[in-house]
Amino acid sequence: MNAAADTKRITPKSEDFDKWYVEVVRRAELADYTPVRGCMVIRPYGFALWENIRDALDAMIKRTGHENMYFPLLIPESYLQREADHVEGFAPQIAWVTHGGEKQLEERLAIRPTSETIICSLYSKWIHSWRDLPVLINQWANVMRWELRTRLFLRTAEFLWQEGHTFHATDEEAAHEVETMLGCYRELAEEWLAMPVISGRKTDSEKFAGARYTLSIEAMMSDGWALQAGTSHHFDQNFTKAYDITFSDRNNVRQNPFQTSWGLSTRIIGGLIMAHGDDAGLIIPPRIAPIQVIVVPILQGDSEQRAAVEAACQQLQRESTVRLRIDNREDMRPGEKFAHWELRGVPLRITIGARDLASGVVTITRRVDGHTQTLPLNQLATQLPALLEEAQTAIYQRAQRLLQERSVNVASLSELTAAFADRPIFANAPFCNRPECEEAVKNAAHALTIRNLRSDQSANGAPCLVCGKPTEHIAVIARAY
Amino acid sequence: MNAAADTKRITPKSEDFDKWYVEVVRRAELADYTPVRGCMVIRPYGFALWENIRDALDAMIKRTGHENMYFPLLIPESYLQREADHVEGFAPQIAWVTHGGEKQLEERLAIRPTSETIICSLYSKWIHSWRDLPVLINQWANVMRWELRTRLFLRTAEFLWQEGHTFHATDEEAAHEVETMLGCYRELAEEWLAMPVISGRKTDSEKFAGARYTLSIEAMMSDGWALQAGTSHHFDQNFTKAYDITFSDRNNVRQNPFQTSWGLSTRIIGGLIMAHGDDAGLIIPPRIAPIQVIVVPILQGDSEQRAAVEAACQQLQRESTVRLRIDNREDMRPGEKFAHWELRGVPLRITIGARDLASGVVTITRRVDGHTQTLPLNQLATQLPALLEEAQTAIYQRAQRLLQERSVNVASLSELTAAFADRPIFANAPFCNRPECEEAVKNAAHALTIRNLRSDQSANGAPCLVCGKPTEHIAVIARAY
Repeated sequence: MNAAADTKRITPKSEDFDKWYVEVVRRAELADYTPVRGCMVIRPYGFALWENIRDALDAMIKRTGHENMYFPLLIPESYLQREADHVEGFAPQIAWVTHGGEKQLEERLAIRPTSETIICSLYSKWIHSWRDLPVLINQWANVMRWELRTRLFLRTAEFLWQEGHTFHATDEEAAHEVETMLGCYRELAEEWLAMPVISGRKTDSEKFAGARYTLSIEAMMSDGWALQAGTSHHFDQNFTKAYDITFSDRNNVRQNPFQTSWGLSTRIIGGLIMAHGDDAGLIIPPRIAPIQVIVVPILQGDSEQRAAVEAACQQLQRESTVRLRIDNREDMRPGEKFAHWELRGVPLRITIGARDLASGVVTITRRVDGHTQTLPLNQLATQLPALLEEAQTAIYQRAQRLLQERSVNVASLSELTAAFADRPIFANAPFCNRPECEEAVKNAAHALTIRNLRSDQSANGAPCLVCGKPTEHIAVIARAY
Repeated sequence: MNAAADTKRITPKSEDFDKWYVEVVRRAELADYTPVRGCMVIRPYGFALWENIRDALDAMIKRTGHENMYFPLLIPESYLQREADHVEGFAPQIAWVTHGGEKQLEERLAIRPTSETIICSLYSKWIHSWRDLPVLINQWANVMRWELRTRLFLRTAEFLWQEGHTFHATDEEAAHEVETMLGCYRELAEEWLAMPVISGRKTDSEKFAGARYTLSIEAMMSDGWALQAGTSHHFDQNFTKAYDITFSDRNNVRQNPFQTSWGLSTRIIGGLIMAHGDDAGLIIPPRIAPIQVIVVPILQGDSEQRAAVEAACQQLQRESTVRLRIDNREDMRPGEKFAHWELRGVPLRITIGARDLASGVVTITRRVDGHTQTLPLNQLATQLPALLEEAQTAIYQRAQRLLQERSVNVASLSELTAAFADRPIFANAPFCNRPECEEAVKNAAHALTIRNLRSDQSANGAPCLVCGKPTEHIAVIARAY
């Protein structure tokens, strides 16, 4: 809350996007580094943002029939080892507890990197019959994945997330669940976070360790890079066989259930910042903004005029049904306050001074595009919800335009290389989904990855951009965080 | 959801209270043991209960001006060691991370047993001036305290809690905060959990490691034992000096702020079970009950009559504004359903059959005392909120009666010993608050402890029950979980 700090210039995005990102996160007081390697502190403004995202998603998770639970933080090493791909995928990232109290443990305990193994161990005791299925559960928790290079929100050793886990009698039902929950993530991203996303299926090299397949949503950041914002996995019977989970079906035959999991983490806050922010700081979509409207009183003139302005602000606050705050700090100029709340991405700013009271009309400024309009003061409280919805739409449309402008269709590796010559983009290309062609794509330009195979488009037999074989898949190729 | 299991007899409380407790927790599917030593799994019904408790308390925490944050799970060993009493108190209970990825760490990391040390480290950078005070923050998190003997909810290595942490310019302001937050805990216990509590100050031997003093709320369980249900600590400047946190006051003089912390955990669910439960299982107060009303359709007669009953149940659900569920399982008899929901402590049960439809009157049964009443079906939806409030009051009054019946005043050690000869009680006694007298009290009967020095009563100079010196304190003496 240091006024001087807020008006200090932020490194422009165009100059150094990474530096801009870290400065915005820290100066807007969303989060900060800690003395604990790889672990961040989420500060009140950042945590309020997470609470709003969490509450929106939690409602969707419950609406779709899931119940929350809580599983142990620590997982014995022997439990992790029962699904071979899984342990191979996660072993290099695990933090190990070796001592409890003052004694060395007989078996090392992993801090959960994800909870499939402990959940399967428990449900092997709880699932007996087709009547026990489906199991539809979710947990909000911290997880730990040891990381060498960390970045606030985007890549930290500890992060917060939800992990949904389900067991089903049939493959089809599990496949439907995987789609349903990816749909919830899409709804969260597009309708709440104002981030248009591309849904699709990961290639085998990018799927979750132990899954048959993984679906993802991918968003474009304002530098043209991609961010994977949520994933949903079909496990087939891989874990239920490894952990010996069985049920008697309606014909009294023992079967292994089909399993899914799906997760979304505090990483999405990083995506939100990079998708929408600008050189003045954050731009937060109103539906998840901790503060939706900031009111800056302009206190000039005699004490009577000042009292009238303060009274008008308080009346607006009383009448308002949105998350509105009055900035009545006395030791700051209005311009400093503007910079303070622009940095923090508050969607709407209202200034109220003695002249506005005299005219009965006040000015509202929209954070996303600086659009200003005037409204009669006595209509303001009732108009604010609609103005916030307009701001939400404006942020979404701006992100949508970026995605359109920086997406291209390519038909060959040389076109792909050329497309990335200028700047990072999303390249859509027919792709056969074979590992050797994926390798060729990755090497066509610096740091390319296949984000996913789009679920909304088909190649209709067009030739793979690498090998030329006819394919149905359209891959989204991009650089990724 | 096994019907046979629900009608199986639970060990009566009078026969073996500890066994009764564990059976109720497991068979009501609140929580269970896991293969991970000391760590429990909180199952959907138990977690829904925790969500309701958490949401009620979170609203109080925010109402009193606090903001939520999130701090790292891991704390470097050197950080823990800076406040001598604190590290001495917690060292025997710490789980240590020694390896990250595949490498041994240079310094061991503790899984947080509580977060004072990491919070002080961070705030030493963030607090500069009197303008930065007060700092009023809270975190909902998991913590780990290695325990040899564990019991579901009551004593587990990992548990969920909230920990509030505040920094203030003056001692008085910190003292006021400590009282305010204990008041929130009392409000939660009494108004939401229907548990009457005794507020007071812990003796020095029972205070938090590093605190100047600790306040607590203590509840009576139905076996006459005590449960500490929430604590609030005044830290003086102990940590702010050890961690070199300073601010410039209004006269530009460097000062160490005064600090508090306060916590309430999933342990309170154990208290709720033991305070209210009976031989049929849980009794959950309506305000926090995941299911407030269970409707059991009595499906007899022809298909038309059955359809009418089902339609009436559905209409009630549509019109109801409370948390109401219809149990329409087909493979269970009504009596089995009654036992199922009694075990789970649902406050009100409504049965609806063809005869009830014909008469237009249905029967409602209250879980806490089996009280039944009839109401016109068409008034039911509007009457349910009032019936639930009555059930809430009935549960509170029952607990209040127990506390009164099993509290005695004693004036000497021999009276104290005699008072505990029959059964566990709460003994109130004038007490001088010296360690040697506390030792004498503890030895007066098996497992006695001083719960707290009551804040609502004064001894007015009566003689200490041990040494006879005049004192102002009334101690509550009890056996405790």
